Amino acid sequence: MLKWLFFKNKLSMRPSKRANDELRPIRIERNYTMHAEGSVLISCGNTKVLCNASVEDRVPPWLRGKGQGWVTAEYGMLPRATNTRNGREAARGKQGGRTLEIQRLIGRSLRAIVDLSALGERVITVDCDVIQADGGTRTASITGAYVALYDAVESLLKNNIIKKNPLHGSVAAVSVGIYNQQPVLDLDYPEDSQAETDMNIVMNDGGHFIEVQGTAEGHAFRRDELNELLDLADSGIQQLLYAQQQAILNKS
Amino acid sequence: MLKWLFFKNKLSMRPSKRANDELRPIRIERNYTMHAEGSVLISCGNTKVLCNASVEDRVPPWLRGKGQGWVTAEYGMLPRATNTRNGREAARGKQGGRTLEIQRLIGRSLRAIVDLSALGERVITVDCDVIQADGGTRTASITGAYVALYDAVESLLKNNIIKKNPLHGSVAAVSVGIYNQQPVLDLDYPEDSQAETDMNIVMNDGGHFIEVQGTAEGHAFRRDELNELLDLADSGIQQLLYAQQQAILNKS
Amino acid sequence: MLKWLFFKNKLSMRPSKRANDELRPIRIERNYTMHAEGSVLISCGNTKVLCNASVEDRVPPWLRGKGQGWVTAEYGMLPRATNTRNGREAARGKQGGRTLEIQRLIGRSLRAIVDLSALGERVITVDCDVIQADGGTRTASITGAYVALYDAVESLLKNNIIKKNPLHGSVAAVSVGIYNQQPVLDLDYPEDSQAETDMNIVMNDGGHFIEVQGTAEGHAFRRDELNELLDLADSGIQQLLYAQQQAILNKS
Amino acid sequence: MLKWLFFKNKLSMRPSKRANDELRPIRIERNYTMHAEGSVLISCGNTKVLCNASVEDRVPPWLRGKGQGWVTAEYGMLPRATNTRNGREAARGKQGGRTLEIQRLIGRSLRAIVDLSALGERVITVDCDVIQADGGTRTASITGAYVALYDAVESLLKNNIIKKNPLHGSVAAVSVGIYNQQPVLDLDYPEDSQAETDMNIVMNDGGHFIEVQGTAEGHAFRRDELNELLDLADSGIQQLLYAQQQAILNKS
Amino acid sequence: MLKWLFFKNKLSMRPSKRANDELRPIRIERNYTMHAEGSVLISCGNTKVLCNASVEDRVPPWLRGKGQGWVTAEYGMLPRATNTRNGREAARGKQGGRTLEIQRLIGRSLRAIVDLSALGERVITVDCDVIQADGGTRTASITGAYVALYDAVESLLKNNIIKKNPLHGSVAAVSVGIYNQQPVLDLDYPEDSQAETDMNIVMNDGGHFIEVQGTAEGHAFRRDELNELLDLADSGIQQLLYAQQQAILNKS
Amino acid sequence: MLKWLFFKNKLSMRPSKRANDELRPIRIERNYTMHAEGSVLISCGNTKVLCNASVEDRVPPWLRGKGQGWVTAEYGMLPRATNTRNGREAARGKQGGRTLEIQRLIGRSLRAIVDLSALGERVITVDCDVIQADGGTRTASITGAYVALYDAVESLLKNNIIKKNPLHGSVAAVSVGIYNQQPVLDLDYPEDSQAETDMNIVMNDGGHFIEVQGTAEGHAFRRDELNELLDLADSGIQQLLYAQQQAILNKS
Repeated sequence: MLKWLFFKNKLSMRPSKRANDELRPIRIERNYTMHAEGSVLISCGNTKVLCNASVEDRVPPWLRGKGQGWVTAEYGMLPRATNTRNGREAARGKQGGRTLEIQRLIGRSLRAIVDLSALGERVITVDCDVIQADGGTRTASITGAYVALYDAVESLLKNNIIKKNPLHGSVAAVSVGIYNQQPVLDLDYPEDSQAETDMNIVMNDGGHFIEVQGTAEGHAFRRDELNELLDLADSGIQQLLYAQQQAILNKS
Repeated sequence: MLKWLFFKNKLSMRPSKRANDELRPIRIERNYTMHAEGSVLISCGNTKVLCNASVEDRVPPWLRGKGQGWVTAEYGMLPRATNTRNGREAARGKQGGRTLEIQRLIGRSLRAIVDLSALGERVITVDCDVIQADGGTRTASITGAYVALYDAVESLLKNNIIKKNPLHGSVAAVSVGIYNQQPVLDLDYPEDSQAETDMNIVMNDGGHFIEVQGTAEGHAFRRDELNELLDLADSGIQQLLYAQQQAILNKS
Repeated sequence: MLKWLFFKNKLSMRPSKRANDELRPIRIERNYTMHAEGSVLISCGNTKVLCNASVEDRVPPWLRGKGQGWVTAEYGMLPRATNTRNGREAARGKQGGRTLEIQRLIGRSLRAIVDLSALGERVITVDCDVIQADGGTRTASITGAYVALYDAVESLLKNNIIKKNPLHGSVAAVSVGIYNQQPVLDLDYPEDSQAETDMNIVMNDGGHFIEVQGTAEGHAFRRDELNELLDLADSGIQQLLYAQQQAILNKS
Repeated sequence: MLKWLFFKNKLSMRPSKRANDELRPIRIERNYTMHAEGSVLISCGNTKVLCNASVEDRVPPWLRGKGQGWVTAEYGMLPRATNTRNGREAARGKQGGRTLEIQRLIGRSLRAIVDLSALGERVITVDCDVIQADGGTRTASITGAYVALYDAVESLLKNNIIKKNPLHGSVAAVSVGIYNQQPVLDLDYPEDSQAETDMNIVMNDGGHFIEVQGTAEGHAFRRDELNELLDLADSGIQQLLYAQQQAILNKS
Repeated sequence: MLKWLFFKNKLSMRPSKRANDELRPIRIERNYTMHAEGSVLISCGNTKVLCNASVEDRVPPWLRGKGQGWVTAEYGMLPRATNTRNGREAARGKQGGRTLEIQRLIGRSLRAIVDLSALGERVITVDCDVIQADGGTRTASITGAYVALYDAVESLLKNNIIKKNPLHGSVAAVSVGIYNQQPVLDLDYPEDSQAETDMNIVMNDGGHFIEVQGTAEGHAFRRDELNELLDLADSGIQQLLYAQQQAILNKS
Repeated sequence: MLKWLFFKNKLSMRPSKRANDELRPIRIERNYTMHAEGSVLISCGNTKVLCNASVEDRVPPWLRGKGQGWVTAEYGMLPRATNTRNGREAARGKQGGRTLEIQRLIGRSLRAIVDLSALGERVITVDCDVIQADGGTRTASITGAYVALYDAVESLLKNNIIKKNPLHGSVAAVSVGIYNQQPVLDLDYPEDSQAETDMNIVMNDGGHFIEVQGTAEGHAFRRDELNELLDLADSGIQQLLYAQQQAILNKS
């Protein structure tokens, strides 16, 4: 018994008892709401994000007449998605820097797998609204947003609004970090708030990088630590890409 | 067959085939999210509103040192809760007039059943966020918000933070209106957008009125029509109050 | 019993010594300012609102090319219209919830008596600015705004800009409430701030309802109380509609 | 007589037929509204400004504990005070540059005759709201604001809230300009919109300058033109200072 | 005694030891940055303002189709241009009243020497950003902005975009004031913050006035003081106009 | 083949003719403006950023009474720092997402080398204002901001305001990217706007990472490409750290 405990501790010092390279349970529910062309509730453990993809027949002013479309994202967090209530951004009268940064990241990540010309002169906006937060809301948003985008594109194809599939790959994201001196995958909030280094990695289904964002929260990190983190992220993202495909294969 | 259709048509001209005095199916899920002191997802047919009640140990500046608390509400709609996407209020930089009007109504309705002195110097904010909209989001918000408020108050009592229950009743709300020349209960969106008259009624468990808000959308309405609508609302609110009590009795 | 009631009415418990069913003195001055197509200063006792109706040859974007016009209202209060100074909304950078709620109410009330197609592709905006406040500013605004709108429409007819009168009725509004346990008509500020129930009623000249907005400030109100209040409002609005007609008949 | 009229007309090329050195009729009504400590409606011809002075027992943060008070002003224009409707600043979400410039000018002009230490730790805010505009609204505001400020100070003295009169003079303002190649006093809107040079002059009852603001609208102006304009302003301000004193001497 | 006074005047009582009629050293560097059509760093003593003139092929909405252009200015101050840090206006969410007032002044001053028809349907915006402040930033902005505007116009002429030079003169500005009971030219910050009277004068190369803005900071000023200040300003502006011409003559 | 590669590297395919691993000329001017406790103009080729460090004796509300200080940054770009004029953020009424993202990055990078407890209860704000932009403004800001921060801290030490140096290292940043299929160091604007991958790397003088931010602009990048980019960044940052030290050693 003691031995087993020791063994288990060796394997995991994480608050959630997960192994260092273990993702939280992931669940992807399609057609979660009724109006959006793509609507996905993604759960990564206790983090839950509703991703709604909306198709609109307009382009931003700077794209008018260019024969191509646009994919963008907006991000929000319900005031009590977190442990203590955060003031509503609409009431404060502006979106904070963190919100703007995250929604720019989601938009860039999605556009990296879209052929905007094949989309035609229309916009797909993916709204990522955090219903419940427990760390990793931006990476969960990207992973869920891809499936919502996929469904929105499918509806365009099915209705013969576009001929060619503008998606040329899939995309998923995960966080990695150094917690308690050890590289860990998919940080939850207790880990995230204590991590010395925090990285968000976005990759496509070809195994290549779309975004790499690493921040030293405590002390600076070394090149070998970076490499370990990238390895962890790679293995996690494989699983997330697989979960996306499974969700898509399930008829809905 | 023809007869049956005729009969059915007589019974209901409503798009949903409901009888004129028939509520949509109501579902109240408590403890829907993990952080809020009270968290309720209320579904009235396809209208779904997440009501999170948050307790904070502060009072607004104008109540400082007065020995009493405050109950307030905020309202929001996810951008794609509706049939076409609405711009995010946080991005537009302000809450619209409709939003402010609704959240003021929810707050007043809740305060009507709260003894603010018994609450002590703290604020309970109920965030009502519409996940999916199909008419009647403001009345669903009030009905759900009461249960969330109840749960938040229970947690204060259970933890001996307050001694006396500040709730001196319960509150629920429903819409009624004149659709197709007939008074109907609990309008869904197709009815709401065509209604000649639209009323929102808030009542307490004593059968008395807390708010009566009626608007002639088409032509003005007569006193006898008003009376019929109030009768319909009364019967609907009885059922909603009962549904609240059932939800509360179910251990969670 | 009857005698006692009579006696009670005679003495009045109202701060202003008015009978419970007595309006404040009403005065409607047309052509109050020189630029607006319709300009009315309405005084209900000490409440004074300047209502200016402006005609503009444009429609809001969502009405372009639909062959109809729009009638809307804006509401403001001078900073020292009230007993203590209120910060200027322009300086604070936004209109408050109360302001937005009131101007939406005024706009809806006016549109209820306008045939927007007959107006053609133009907008009439009625600005209701409270010069001095003593309760009932929103109902005074509606009653005064009708006369300003009437004058603006007359100028369009007189100048042959439109052929058919788009007004198909008149509209007036009054507040009623339960003060000191008694239903009273046309509350002034000392009553309004103490009232247990506060209602604003908008009716047309056919005696039908356009808006009914009742709020329980203290405890909830009963159906019979509601009925008494509606009776009071009805009698008050008859007098207001008459005052409007008298003002209009006076050449100006 | 006819000859003289002809002669007078020859002398005056002004749209209003006034002589070049002739003020518009001025009217100063005190106690115009009931709540403000000082409330003045000033009419300079068709320009009408309501000036309300409010006393508040607070000082701005940067004056706390300094044993002195503050006098400030805010300026606004009702949307239809002008010939065509101007959007409401509260609705647009900010005060324009012109508004800010004018209210800074009014505040400086008033402070020039106030001993802020004698005022004690309180603020007097004079709200100048233009009810009807026909040129010269900023100078009318200053002239009227002085009387409102005077009345507010009197109420402080009468109620023994302050002992020493903080006013050490009076202040009035007028516009002058070059219209039709001739220097004229007190421009109305038709002149103002055509003037080649436009000056606003603020002086105290000692005949000294508080503000001199001259702008070449068409071509630049010469030193001798400036001198003529200053002479005109001086004579006009004497009359305005006298009108203020007359208004104050009339018991109210 | 008399001699000593004479001697004192000669030595100057100004903190900078300048004579009362002495400008600070002026330096005008053209082509300061690489992108703007005109880019000037002007230094008046320690006050340094970067003036960038940008040509854009658009006109404001109210000038569309009128066959003329527009010249405007914007003004900003780097947060630590001053002795203590000022909050960034972009972060506060609006430009302050002082900023708006100054940029309106710069724009008017420049337009006074431009034939807007000769400019054609284009806008020249001169951005005046204060890098370091030591009093007189608005007058330095005008003096520098003229040279930036000159260079922008030259580039339009050289590239045959316009045929006729729209500049019909040059413009410069200086501050004068009463410091220590004496009229002085070109106040630096220590003087400006203590001055009893502060004037900003804008003149053209014909020796005529474009703007005269004088404010009594302490006590009101007399006509003879005004005249002395205007004389000082006139002599200072002659020198500034000469410095502009010298800067322009230096090939760059 | 090898020879050809060598030859190619020698000739360079970069618009600036730089070798792929060649920084632009760097220049660090200390004491650039007179008021700030640290004031540095950094030039990286044509990119010029003014970095002013301001010390203030206050802490943000959430740090009150915690016995530690704060280091933060703000970022801005003069409207015509770029090839075409960008609207002023202060005029638009808010800072854009890019601005907020950059200033958050600068602040985090600086805090990574500061012991906030040793700083005491004070804030150092580093304002990074881009005078001229040619790519790499955020990395130039970080590199320059360190020197400004160093000077501000030195002034605190010299004046005995703090005893212990709160800086425990130095920090610099550089961009790297894949341009024309080749990894290059320190991208200028023509490269940046065409790059397939764009990374910003922040490192300390221990050779460890503080931030790694890589974005695939065109197609996703491989792990080996990432490694090449990190090598390039490492060599560039060594040179930048050296340039900082040289600037500091030069007495000023």
